[in-house]
Amino acid sequence: MLAVYLERGVVELRDVPVPVPPPGFALIRLVCAGICNTDLELQRGYYGFAGIPGHEFVGVVEQGPGELTGKRVVGEINLACGTCEWCARGLGRHCPNRTVLGIAGHPGAFAEYLTLPIPNLHVVPDALATERAVFTEPVAAACEILDQVDMPAGVPVAVLGDGKLGLLAAQVLAAHGADVSLYGHHPERARMAGVMPGSEGKTFDFVVEATGSPDGLRQAIAMTRPRGTVIMKSTVHGDVAFDTARAVVNEITLIGSRCGRFGPALTLLLRGAVRVDDMIADRYALGDAPRAFARAATPGALKVLLYPDKRGFER
Amino acid sequence: MLAVYLERGVVELRDVPVPVPPPGFALIRLVCAGICNTDLELQRGYYGFAGIPGHEFVGVVEQGPGELTGKRVVGEINLACGTCEWCARGLGRHCPNRTVLGIAGHPGAFAEYLTLPIPNLHVVPDALATERAVFTEPVAAACEILDQVDMPAGVPVAVLGDGKLGLLAAQVLAAHGADVSLYGHHPERARMAGVMPGSEGKTFDFVVEATGSPDGLRQAIAMTRPRGTVIMKSTVHGDVAFDTARAVVNEITLIGSRCGRFGPALTLLLRGAVRVDDMIADRYALGDAPRAFARAATPGALKVLLYPDKRGFER
Repeated sequence: MLAVYLERGVVELRDVPVPVPPPGFALIRLVCAGICNTDLELQRGYYGFAGIPGHEFVGVVEQGPGELTGKRVVGEINLACGTCEWCARGLGRHCPNRTVLGIAGHPGAFAEYLTLPIPNLHVVPDALATERAVFTEPVAAACEILDQVDMPAGVPVAVLGDGKLGLLAAQVLAAHGADVSLYGHHPERARMAGVMPGSEGKTFDFVVEATGSPDGLRQAIAMTRPRGTVIMKSTVHGDVAFDTARAVVNEITLIGSRCGRFGPALTLLLRGAVRVDDMIADRYALGDAPRAFARAATPGALKVLLYPDKRGFER
Repeated sequence: MLAVYLERGVVELRDVPVPVPPPGFALIRLVCAGICNTDLELQRGYYGFAGIPGHEFVGVVEQGPGELTGKRVVGEINLACGTCEWCARGLGRHCPNRTVLGIAGHPGAFAEYLTLPIPNLHVVPDALATERAVFTEPVAAACEILDQVDMPAGVPVAVLGDGKLGLLAAQVLAAHGADVSLYGHHPERARMAGVMPGSEGKTFDFVVEATGSPDGLRQAIAMTRPRGTVIMKSTVHGDVAFDTARAVVNEITLIGSRCGRFGPALTLLLRGAVRVDDMIADRYALGDAPRAFARAATPGALKVLLYPDKRGFER
């Protein structure tokens, strides 16, 4: 089968065997995948990654339990051991023995076929279009904020960064009832997310740092009121420096926030409470992956989708 | 009156007028004061401070309401405006219009007399010795952790740093029922605090960072389990750098923690649940303040106390 392969910063195409699903796993045929900033970081070699990347996908189950076979699915990306204390607490996303689809120890979704444990799969409702469902994983990451922080309805919230994650976080929090201000470099994107553009000099009880920049945290803390909360969404490579004394004196809480549950994300996408159609920047076939990665790395680019072949998206 | 005066790093003695308490304030005669690391930072000129430092004290009310006159008191250090939204929420400690005793905008306690608003004062119970009561302010800062974080009884907690604040935090958390491990440079101090010394390689759901060092936060995050909490107590001057991606991936919460309520602190000191007698490193008269500051700045020094004159402590 055709697979994208990342090694030492180079995006290659390889012909590899179709994976054989171990017991308890399903074999999934790729329908559509999305390139995430994490994929671009893997390409830059930050985590010594070598392998098939990709963790945002919609696929069809080819081998698996009868009730799933032939169904469109999305899949949670953490492959937990199922036996440790984290798994027992329902927090397999933090299982120390986990592998992660397309990120660590398990081949990813930028290939014609992939495998995942059956409990990781969620059937995509018929009414939800594939190009919306492919956003489930990053929408779940945005939903995670609400699993971690008790955010009263109507509360003013700043979202810093109007890239992919910032736009999704803004919409998820607005759907929850927060009064969201979006701070970024593209004035039209607040309208795209259906929220207000941020204005200078305001301060907030809740600030979501989704800039992807090492300077974002400093800006977030400066905008946070005493006793307020900064939700840290950016995974910046290397050290980030900031004035911790300001956080101490103002008793600010900083919360690291990563993956979330797929259920709420699918619901929001199905309800149209999170709108993603305008966030699709481009579509490529797997065979064009090098160009797709270059396109995704263009400053300001939103979501670049990958299809097994051009028939997936060309009319 | 005799007062310690800090300016451009120099500890001087000055003869200044006895302050006149404004309406609503009390005039307090100093009995005993403590030198805090913040005083040493003020001396280093970090905040452009010039004036009378000192915010840990026990005094006797000389002018004030009848029920307070002649009583030993300790005093909360934030002078709040009383009219803003923070004050209305009972969080005058975060009042944006506040001054702070001996730190910002209000002359401090290293003088024969000081003034404070009457609501800031707490009468010291007769059964509580002055040299214990003088620890009320830093014990309150340690108690603040429990106002911010819900820490289950019996939970393992690491306290990083066996300086003054670390020793008090360890005792306050142990009194609350936490299973405290103290990490520091002085093996005998865990025994002084009545807790276990920290052992290599352990990880914790709660880590209190009280090292006062720019490297403390990195160490704290490395010792914190996924979904765990780091309580940031050190106010380090300048930027602190750390691997925020680790905090994001492990969804760690970092909470800045500063001043606390005096009531619980007085209770713990009175009950003997926080023992401070062994933490007194030395005693000086105000007139020896330059030597006292030098002594307090000695590596590893614990609490240095200041008295109006030697008769306060010499037998």
